[in-house]
Amino acid sequence: MNAKAPIDFYFDFSSPYGYLGSEMIEALARRHDRSVDWHPMLLGVVFRQTGALPLTQVPVKGPYAIRDFARSARFHGIPYRMPDVFPIAAQVPSRMMLWAKQRDPAQGVRAAQALYRAFFVDGHDISQPDVAAAAVGAAGFDAAAARAAIDEPAIKDALKAEVDRAIAAGVFGSPFFVVDGEPFWGVDRFDQIERWLAEGAF
Amino acid sequence: MNAKAPIDFYFDFSSPYGYLGSEMIEALARRHDRSVDWHPMLLGVVFRQTGALPLTQVPVKGPYAIRDFARSARFHGIPYRMPDVFPIAAQVPSRMMLWAKQRDPAQGVRAAQALYRAFFVDGHDISQPDVAAAAVGAAGFDAAAARAAIDEPAIKDALKAEVDRAIAAGVFGSPFFVVDGEPFWGVDRFDQIERWLAEGAF
Repeated sequence: MNAKAPIDFYFDFSSPYGYLGSEMIEALARRHDRSVDWHPMLLGVVFRQTGALPLTQVPVKGPYAIRDFARSARFHGIPYRMPDVFPIAAQVPSRMMLWAKQRDPAQGVRAAQALYRAFFVDGHDISQPDVAAAAVGAAGFDAAAARAAIDEPAIKDALKAEVDRAIAAGVFGSPFFVVDGEPFWGVDRFDQIERWLAEGAF
Repeated sequence: MNAKAPIDFYFDFSSPYGYLGSEMIEALARRHDRSVDWHPMLLGVVFRQTGALPLTQVPVKGPYAIRDFARSARFHGIPYRMPDVFPIAAQVPSRMMLWAKQRDPAQGVRAAQALYRAFFVDGHDISQPDVAAAAVGAAGFDAAAARAAIDEPAIKDALKAEVDRAIAAGVFGSPFFVVDGEPFWGVDRFDQIERWLAEGAF
């Protein structure tokens, strides 16, 4: 008996839509007897291929995006507040999440959710190592070990590998999902992902 | 008794997602006792503000978009085929639709749907005046009058006014909807538009 393949979930810790995806993807996967493989990546690197700017820095589109982040969160019933410091570089939370994931995938999910909520609910600047360590510490992790992990060469390499993997998978935005080889960009493709999981390719 | 305000629907005739929106917006509006005011505009002009490129020309994102256009059409049960000539300049179909709209808004809708389907179902290059005239002719309009209208100064000015109106409304993509002052970008915001119409601001 083969287990069904996990859903690959690519995200950047500075992405509001990535955060919304992180709050919704596990429940969606469970409804269809799937697991989720969480892949932190760096949009700054990915954007070098497409020439994209951070969304909030695009004229005209930026103000709409800020409005849509909050409205989409309310629509889905997810707590959200635009952080004062935004966007942030995502290396620190990404490495910390990968450190937790290397111990156990479920711990990686728990660390990622704690970091995302610290940023998008509490407004904490998780690009700062001590702030990120406090966030995972509050979620039950060893804060000192988490703080130390972000400087470990193996963890740095793990993040580089995740970014390479994302680029190889054709990821150009956050969140990005791959379901049995099929790519879906955005929280707004959850309806299509749901049908794909329920009925197969359409 | 005040009638409820119409939904403003901004679209570019070269936009696949605009086409999908054109096939869905009237039914959505009817469910909530609303009318729709159809506004053709030119993404090429709008994109000068944001620096955006036509979606299919963006590295990495372009191939995904081509896949997503067709998948989204299948998801919504809308006939669709990627035109061989793409993108096209939308001046000709836009002016032809405005010519029909000036006679009667319902005729504008009928002309717009005929033009969109000629392009995205039949693959006809509606940037060509004779091709566009044939498309509206097949839908019951006077093809010769439609063909002549695209060179009328008043119709040209009407399109310029629509583009100015779109820019003033903060439009940066297609389709773009404004419901009682609230902006929504994309077919994938139909779920939010539906709730906004049913329950008011959330």
